[in-house]
Formats: sequence, structure tokens, C-alpha cells
Amino acid sequence: MSRVRPDQVRQITSLGGGPIGAGWAAHFLAQGYDVTSYLHDPSEEQAFHNVVDTAWVSLEALGLAQGASRERLTITNDLEEAVSEAQFVQESAPENLPLKQSLYKQLGDLVPEDVVISSSTSGLTMTDIQKHCSTPERTVVGHPFNPPYLLPLVEIVGGEKSSPDAVKWACDFYQAASKAPLVLNKEVPGFIATRLQEALWREALHMVANGEATPQQIDTALIHGPAPRMALMGQCLAFHVACGEGGMATNLDQFGPTLKLPWTRLKAPEPTKKLRDRMVNGCNEMAAGRHFKDLAAERDRGIVAVLNAINASQKRSG
Amino acid sequence: MSRVRPDQVRQITSLGGGPIGAGWAAHFLAQGYDVTSYLHDPSEEQAFHNVVDTAWVSLEALGLAQGASRERLTITNDLEEAVSEAQFVQESAPENLPLKQSLYKQLGDLVPEDVVISSSTSGLTMTDIQKHCSTPERTVVGHPFNPPYLLPLVEIVGGEKSSPDAVKWACDFYQAASKAPLVLNKEVPGFIATRLQEALWREALHMVANGEATPQQIDTALIHGPAPRMALMGQCLAFHVACGEGGMATNLDQFGPTLKLPWTRLKAPEPTKKLRDRMVNGCNEMAAGRHFKDLAAERDRGIVAVLNAINASQKRSG
Repeated sequence: MSRVRPDQVRQITSLGGGPIGAGWAAHFLAQGYDVTSYLHDPSEEQAFHNVVDTAWVSLEALGLAQGASRERLTITNDLEEAVSEAQFVQESAPENLPLKQSLYKQLGDLVPEDVVISSSTSGLTMTDIQKHCSTPERTVVGHPFNPPYLLPLVEIVGGEKSSPDAVKWACDFYQAASKAPLVLNKEVPGFIATRLQEALWREALHMVANGEATPQQIDTALIHGPAPRMALMGQCLAFHVACGEGGMATNLDQFGPTLKLPWTRLKAPEPTKKLRDRMVNGCNEMAAGRHFKDLAAERDRGIVAVLNAINASQKRSG
Repeated sequence: MSRVRPDQVRQITSLGGGPIGAGWAAHFLAQGYDVTSYLHDPSEEQAFHNVVDTAWVSLEALGLAQGASRERLTITNDLEEAVSEAQFVQESAPENLPLKQSLYKQLGDLVPEDVVISSSTSGLTMTDIQKHCSTPERTVVGHPFNPPYLLPLVEIVGGEKSSPDAVKWACDFYQAASKAPLVLNKEVPGFIATRLQEALWREALHMVANGEATPQQIDTALIHGPAPRMALMGQCLAFHVACGEGGMATNLDQFGPTLKLPWTRLKAPEPTKKLRDRMVNGCNEMAAGRHFKDLAAERDRGIVAVLNAINASQKRSG
């Protein structure tokens, strides 16, 4: 196999001139890679540079990698030239299945054998995208969260014809590129993060539609309520910690009946023993033997840091 | 009316020795108030002090108000004595309707006339709680988010017999006490923040039940995906800003069809013109004439501050 080691990639190709493609290019440049960006049309170039300009302010504030430079960006409108030297390809073309299928048909032949091609798609599956690709085994989804130059999450999942090797390689590569890779067990519409956000979003739309809340109230509730905690500790571990000694088992056993309450329009799943075991075991693995008081203290230190950072940032802005 | 001005309250009574009651006591002490805590049973005192000890570490890191001191805490097991001098009462008794109804029957006679009594209830309505209270007009819900000594949100709503004056007074008081008050239009089960969180939580449980995600994957997706952004900018304004010039109107018109996609098990509401207008107007009011690029830049500065704060906090912990 000619695939370069994930931590030895130097040359990346980013396909797409929109906010996602440009955001990826900025992130990879900030990490010290050589980046070639393919723009379908020369007219996209100004908007592309605007995104990179905006992103660069934040990337500098987060800290550039040694040797990182915007000088290491090359822009081209020639697809073959764009990918000929690539050691990794991040594809952020428009969300249109026939368009992506046709693109992957080309890429399958143009991109050097074994080089992983990763799609930023948020709504399509790789099984569908890779349908007409001659070398589908090295194609995967690598879905970022907006803005891609700031939020670390990348959800990774292969299609039916993707090889497990390519998925593993993509995970290791994103890790080396300072992202937070999350490999999914299977192709699920919306992956994981978007599904969670979408459930919240649809409940919000219902509340606005029914006069139960305004958009301003929705946003105030999130910013000052669950979000600062969730930035530090996910909802599963947060409930585990909040229930003290009993942890997630107490949450499900004692507060299980609240899952029947009309606290959202989404009905909860049946509280089976299998679900309970999965939740309890998962939380125990995350806790990794740490006492709930230590986890709570760590959570609190993090929330304090986040609240102080937000206050300081808003004072500077104000 | 003998009610003290919201910004001149000095003496607060916190009812309840559990984590919420103790958390409130810690918060009010840190804000420089004199606090009397009523514990139903003397045996609760050790656990109560443990919560205050834990909270105090964070409250010091956030910054104590001038004159704030744990010396200004009085503990009593005598309800009449606890409330006789109160200028505000925060009630955090167990979530049990008959128990709360009986408590409010007593409080209605014991608490000095016109002093606002605010309930931390997360699942009951004030209409039910105040049923047997002789002075219900000054009773409201003031629902904190856990941990109450850290997260700023307090959701405020009256019951059928609550006076609008009491609701307004409570809002002004919480603002003066450095909380982020959110007055609801009407009594809704789960208020606003819990409904949004609960939709997300039930989708997470479905995903775990169906083998689509583990608890670890759920938490990773939240921490590195939507949460750091949501701590700065709520979901409504975030979508508005992400859609550039077109804002929320573009979000609903262009991406409206995605509301039909199976990206969560919760069905979206019908995309009526009324809903569209409410969403668009609400976002425009929040934007208050600021250009989307300025809002995006402010969002990015905030996310950078949050990510840097989390990294620094975890380095200190590790």
C-alpha cells in the first residue's frame, strides 16, 4: 500500500470554494500543511479569500502550528492538477447527489491510488456518493461542524464499499491534524451531532410556532442554561455526575418516569434493560473509576473558565 | 405595598438542604446577601455544607461580591424563624406536589406579606403548587439550571393566581443578584431550557437503544461540535448568521426541506408563514441591525476564548 502515514501527510487538497471548503483550507494551512484548493469557478476566489481572512484571525488566536503560512496555499481551477500531488483530499462540493456521484467518478481515476478522499457531506451517505467511483474503497465521509476552522468535531463513516483501513486512516489523520475525530458505527442520516442538534431545533420551532417561546427566549435559555455545561461535559456524563453515587443507573431508575412527561414533543424510547445497561456501562467507562465528586469539581472548574472567558470576550467586544 | 425594591434586598431565605437549595444559598452568599437556610432535618447539615464547600471554590474563581462571606449564613430547622425576616424566599423542597402544596399553605401565612416566594421546581406548575396558599399572588416559579451556583439561567413564570407585579419583581431581583432571568409567556411543562435539552436527550437515548451511537460518542459529538458555539450564540441566531445576507429567511426557505429529512425522530412543525415571520423577526431583533459578518466575527472571538479556556483548564486538571 502506497498510502502515506497519517502523521506524515504534508500536501492536502481541499475541493470547494464555499464556506466549508474555504474553512477547511484555512484550518489545514494553520496546521502547517501545504494546501491546494480547487475552485470550480474563478469567480469564487474573492469569497474564498474572505472566508480565509476571517478564519485566520481566529486561527492565529488559537495558535498556529510551526511553519504555518497562508503562503503555502495554491488555488487552481483544474481538477486534475489539484489532486495530482495530494496525500489527502477533503471534498466540500455542493450537497447534490448526482453532482457528487459524478465528481467521485472523476476523482476515482484522478486521485493517486490509495489516497483517502473524505467528503464534508452533512446529508448524503458515502454508499450513495461512491456508487460510480472506480476506487471506492478509499472514500469516506469526514463531516465537520460549522465553522470548520473552529469546531474540532469531524464525524467519520465509510460507505458499503469503503475499506475499514481507510476509515481508520482518516481517523488517525484528523487526530494528527488537531481535529476531534468521531468514527460512527454505521451510516445514520444526520450522523450523531446533527441529529442531537436537530431534535433541539425542531422542539424550538414547535415552541415558537405554538407561542410558547420566542427565538430570543430560545437563545437566552441555551446560552445561560445547558450550553456552557455541555461545552465541557456531554449530556450523558453530566446526568451521571449529577446523580451522585448512583450515577446513570439512578438517573434512569429514579427519573425514568420523567421520560413519560410532556417535556418535549419527542417520545422517549422504551426503558429496556438493554438500553439501561448500555447507558450505565458507557458512563462508567467515561468516568473511568473517578469519583463523582472529582468529576463534578472538574466540570465546575471548566464552567468557571468558560464563563470567565465569555465575559472577558464580550467586554473586549463591547 | 411593603415589598422592598429588588436591588435593595439584603436578607434571603433559602428553603431546602438538597443540592439545589444549598447551591442557591452558596450563590446568594457569594453575591453578598445575608442568607438563612431552612433544613427540614438537622441530619441534612453535613451534606448541605459539602455542597457549599464545593460551590465556594467556583464562586471565588468567578469573583465574590464586596462583603460576601460564608459567615453571613444562618441555618435553622424552624420554618417560622427561617422566614420571619425574609425579603425574598427561594424554595427548593423535594419535587412532590402534595408536599409543596402543604408547604405553600404554611408559607402563605408565615412569610411577611408581599415578600415574593419563588420555587425552584423543574416539573410542577405554580398554578398547582399555590392551590392551597392563602396569599398566592406573590408566589412564582424561579427555576435554576444545575448547578445553580454556576449556570446563570433562571426561568420565571407565575401561576393562575400570581400577580404580574410579583413576576416582574422576581425578574428584577434575579437580575440584581447576577442571574440571567428569563420570563416565560405561559406555563409550559419543562419550561424552555429543559424542553430543548430533553429533546436532545431523548434522541440520544433512541440512538443508544438502536446501536447508532454509544454514550461516549454522544458526549464527544456535543463537546466538540455544537456546544462550544451554543455557549456563545443560541441556535436561532447561529443559523441566522450562518446563512449570510439572507439570514433566517434563507435558512427556512432554502433548507426548509431538510426539516422533512429523518435527521431526528422528532417531526418538525408545519412551515407556516406565521412561524417563518416569528423566526425571521425574532432573529432580526437579536441582530439589531448588526451585519452578519460582525456577528460571525464576534461569535468566532467567543468560540476561540471558550476553546482556549477549556484547554487551559484541562491542562491544569491533567
